[in-house]
Amino acid sequence: MLLSFEGIDGCGKSTQIKLLQNYLKNTGYKSYLFREPGGTEVSEKIRSLLLHESDELDPVSEMLLFSAARSQLIAEKVIPLIKKGEIVILDRFYDSTTAYQGYGRKSVPLDKIQLLNSIASHGIQPDITFYLKIDPLIAQKRTESVEKDRMEKSGLEFFRDVAGGFDELSKSEKRFKTLDATLSVEEIHQKITSILAPHL
Amino acid sequence: MLLSFEGIDGCGKSTQIKLLQNYLKNTGYKSYLFREPGGTEVSEKIRSLLLHESDELDPVSEMLLFSAARSQLIAEKVIPLIKKGEIVILDRFYDSTTAYQGYGRKSVPLDKIQLLNSIASHGIQPDITFYLKIDPLIAQKRTESVEKDRMEKSGLEFFRDVAGGFDELSKSEKRFKTLDATLSVEEIHQKITSILAPHL
Repeated sequence: MLLSFEGIDGCGKSTQIKLLQNYLKNTGYKSYLFREPGGTEVSEKIRSLLLHESDELDPVSEMLLFSAARSQLIAEKVIPLIKKGEIVILDRFYDSTTAYQGYGRKSVPLDKIQLLNSIASHGIQPDITFYLKIDPLIAQKRTESVEKDRMEKSGLEFFRDVAGGFDELSKSEKRFKTLDATLSVEEIHQKITSILAPHL
Repeated sequence: MLLSFEGIDGCGKSTQIKLLQNYLKNTGYKSYLFREPGGTEVSEKIRSLLLHESDELDPVSEMLLFSAARSQLIAEKVIPLIKKGEIVILDRFYDSTTAYQGYGRKSVPLDKIQLLNSIASHGIQPDITFYLKIDPLIAQKRTESVEKDRMEKSGLEFFRDVAGGFDELSKSEKRFKTLDATLSVEEIHQKITSILAPHL
């Protein structure tokens, strides 16, 4: 089973993923977590190019680097685990490319991004995508004190476009489960486990 | 004006490009040379990932990394130069992706590669592509004494497929000018300048 978590920075993904992994462990399931971009030796090198390089990165090149890191992770780690029947959790997947590069940067038309996503993901898609929906202004306040990487420095207007992209995806993709990220940590966790339980 | 040089390793591209640059200089034209993958700070870092990493690189990821390096080079260097009316020479361009990753690795269907090429090249294409055609066995003998990078180590059968890819492109793309790479260096150079002269 493949689960993905999506949402803008500051939506609380990491916290919820940690709680979910604990829950799975306590109910007897092992799970494997990967964060995008990253998760393999090559992908981590690409991650460092993406998040710590100068601001001079061309938006199309950025999108292709995210896709290259993804392709390596999916081929090297995710597909072999899924074939063995394991539970894989992705902290971001190709919906982030659609939202950040497509709706945010607007660097490439959406139909081309979808094709690129299908190439980079080797045709696999998540069984459930948990979308932690939050107002970009609230998310910004939450992350004010944290040191930001190149993507996170992109400003409020950019994040409004990205959030709009996730909202659009949540309407068109049945696998999207939208969660109000302003609820308490415990409430969100309860909702996630109750959505997941029937699938275990 | 945008000129590209294509052909398998050992076809003599570098020698011909050097001679062409001298010829252009002597006839009063400045030219700018870039080799793919590379040519910008980010692209050179991607180049080093591509050519010196372990053999564990997923073929789709490889293709996306070549495309990311290309996109950066085209956006940052090539398009601004062409807009200023300069002559740009590319030591490999997207035809290499079609030949190496499409016909050689067969990692992604050709129609998807073409779309990816158009994204990564920001829609520009060469005015003339000089294709130095050579039998892979002869090319292999020429490069026997040279230390090989990850791509060059791929073996004769792979290079036969790649050469077949270039041959197909030379039939379908009018901008391809096929040159017999077993002629003498001076003969090939003469042919290149006589093809180019009317365009200068």
